[in-house]
Amino acid sequence: MAVMQTVFEKYGFTPLETPAVERLEVLQAKGNQGDNILYAITPLTPEDHEKSESRALKFDQTVPLAAYIARHFHELTFPFARYQMDMVFRGERAKTGRYRQFRQCDIDVVGRGELSLLYDAQLPAIIYEIFQKLAIGDFLIRINNRKILTGFFSSLGIGLDQIKTCIKIIDALDKIGADKVTSTLQEMGLSSDSARKIMEFISIKGDQDTILQQLTDTLSNINDTLDLGIQELTQVVKYVRSLGVPERYFTVDLSIARGLDYYTGTVYETTLVGYESLGSICSGGRYDDLVGMFAGEKLPGVGISIGLTRLLRQLLDKGIVKPLSPTPAQVMVVNMQADLMPTYLTISQALRQHDIKVLTNFATRPLKKQLDQANKLGIPVCLIIGESEYRNKTCRLKNMLTGEQLDVPLSELVSTVEQYLTTVANIQ
Amino acid sequence: MAVMQTVFEKYGFTPLETPAVERLEVLQAKGNQGDNILYAITPLTPEDHEKSESRALKFDQTVPLAAYIARHFHELTFPFARYQMDMVFRGERAKTGRYRQFRQCDIDVVGRGELSLLYDAQLPAIIYEIFQKLAIGDFLIRINNRKILTGFFSSLGIGLDQIKTCIKIIDALDKIGADKVTSTLQEMGLSSDSARKIMEFISIKGDQDTILQQLTDTLSNINDTLDLGIQELTQVVKYVRSLGVPERYFTVDLSIARGLDYYTGTVYETTLVGYESLGSICSGGRYDDLVGMFAGEKLPGVGISIGLTRLLRQLLDKGIVKPLSPTPAQVMVVNMQADLMPTYLTISQALRQHDIKVLTNFATRPLKKQLDQANKLGIPVCLIIGESEYRNKTCRLKNMLTGEQLDVPLSELVSTVEQYLTTVANIQ
Repeated sequence: MAVMQTVFEKYGFTPLETPAVERLEVLQAKGNQGDNILYAITPLTPEDHEKSESRALKFDQTVPLAAYIARHFHELTFPFARYQMDMVFRGERAKTGRYRQFRQCDIDVVGRGELSLLYDAQLPAIIYEIFQKLAIGDFLIRINNRKILTGFFSSLGIGLDQIKTCIKIIDALDKIGADKVTSTLQEMGLSSDSARKIMEFISIKGDQDTILQQLTDTLSNINDTLDLGIQELTQVVKYVRSLGVPERYFTVDLSIARGLDYYTGTVYETTLVGYESLGSICSGGRYDDLVGMFAGEKLPGVGISIGLTRLLRQLLDKGIVKPLSPTPAQVMVVNMQADLMPTYLTISQALRQHDIKVLTNFATRPLKKQLDQANKLGIPVCLIIGESEYRNKTCRLKNMLTGEQLDVPLSELVSTVEQYLTTVANIQ
Repeated sequence: MAVMQTVFEKYGFTPLETPAVERLEVLQAKGNQGDNILYAITPLTPEDHEKSESRALKFDQTVPLAAYIARHFHELTFPFARYQMDMVFRGERAKTGRYRQFRQCDIDVVGRGELSLLYDAQLPAIIYEIFQKLAIGDFLIRINNRKILTGFFSSLGIGLDQIKTCIKIIDALDKIGADKVTSTLQEMGLSSDSARKIMEFISIKGDQDTILQQLTDTLSNINDTLDLGIQELTQVVKYVRSLGVPERYFTVDLSIARGLDYYTGTVYETTLVGYESLGSICSGGRYDDLVGMFAGEKLPGVGISIGLTRLLRQLLDKGIVKPLSPTPAQVMVVNMQADLMPTYLTISQALRQHDIKVLTNFATRPLKKQLDQANKLGIPVCLIIGESEYRNKTCRLKNMLTGEQLDVPLSELVSTVEQYLTTVANIQ
């Protein structure tokens, strides 16, 4: 979260938190699509005046963003760029990868009237920087444009309602595979010829420029939507490059559809290379008509979302990240004899003044038990002062990783511990 | 929150988040005292298997901590020291200083069997360091011990049940005043003599040692509870000193009672000097019997809590802290002409690589409007590159606080901006 926060703010995004508890009608404003996942809340012993208003817990960050913008419309400067990293709630049965409560990290920019495509290009640059810094392995940001999909489907004579269904089916490609997508497209009423053409289309492979060139060559001047989509995607790719994202970290992928109805242009997914089966770890897109309905004017937006709880669970399960040790403490000050406690406290405070994280042991237990405890907690350094060390104004420093011990004059303790911790950090 | 996190971790406290959504019976385990503030939750369209279990939102951090310890008892190392900074929820009507949802920052240490008084002394040291760093003015940590109060009340012949009521009445002293406390004590059945003695007792003033000496001189050997309380408080004061908390930041205050039943020893409140009417901004105490009831053995704990949402509202209202500017951005790269966008993007990325927070303006608007926008957003530096700057490989740097302008070669831009921002930070 600290990495994300730093990068989001470097791009000028403002931190925002919206209430978890929201009026039900606000959460349902996008239509009833949230109904099956909404948690309704009521005071256990309601006061009279509370009974009239229905409340629920937010199930995503986008609807509350739209509500926030509507409420603070005249105080905000547009484009309004905010990030949010708080909890969302879903009244579903908890199971693997599906949580009652999870942290969803979203960034969105919302403009007034219009919003430059450069914002669409900036999001992959942000995502690139975050995943680079998180160092969880190679990743690929896959970019597409909804207008290309709808324009292409339309060119096959598919009607608007059917296009929405097509997009949802294609969105399931990674989960259900090409054969199942083809048969499902036919089940919904497409000819085998149309289904084949769609499958060919979304399977076009190559580097960014090859795909864009092929689109321009074969699909120009068929309909305005297609033309606009190709033009937008070309611009976005150009600017992603200008922002310094290396070629191997992003690609054009015509199979990226995203399930949600409200996307109108650029769409993104991100996969971990070698762990594609985990699905997208960071997704989003452009939505030109979602936010405006609350405020009553055109407020196009573009955003991207990281489902942090699910991602972290996956990374832990695959061993890509390791759990933190049970304590942040880097040093344990061992409690050898109660009468030396003032010394232990003074030493602990001296280390803390140099931002070293110290656990002072207050319980009186045998030395071995205290060292065991340090090991169990993953504390790399123990400081031991008994009678003789006290008399000699020294401290025994024990490196818990190597077992190595060193007697250090108290006057040099802080600098020696700092050096030790640097060494430990390099080993780990 | 970053300040708190840093200090908590320097003392070896582990970050913990417990679920907001918890089984109702767990939240009610402390008795029904939460009932009037509990938010019950139910899926809006429940699946069948969900209907049987009642769930609610946590209303404090202590009950969920106890539940967490019971659930993970055999994985934890005791004493278990954790901090928590997440949201709690109350099904009350929202009004000033009373929220449906607020952030409560708690630290607690829970021991197994016993827990050294040094932990009681460490909390004021942590609080001292946090409020020093937050720089919100002078503060006073007021320390008392419940055993002194109960022992003293008991010495007046007041029964155990009445003592609980006495403590709640005294806890209201800052709110209702001495006269009202006196009359309320009498209304509950105390003699005017007892009420007077209590009021005299809780009004004892002086420095730490004077008060402790007076307690020892006048109240020793009356009953064990009093003796133990005086002994504990004396030790805590001694160790708070050893931990380096200056005398003027903490005091012994015999009127500190805390309303909650579960405190058994040390109790704390913290007031902002000159803003005592705000009430306690950080409170807590020792609870020897609360956590054990979940785990079935003695698990004494001590903790302290900062109601961050309420505190922040108060500090903002009094002008003690100022709201953040609407954007974290330190620099706005102005958009002079669309064809120079690749240059704007390259410059923005170069600054970001030096951790400078940059808002690149993508909308094409007149220069004046863009500068107005920077002012409105509180961005201190604008970078302007038009045709002539582009040709000369320079950049016009505008200090938005002074109006000062400076033409800088692009090769020196990053270092010049860094210097500017340092100057600005010093001015503000």
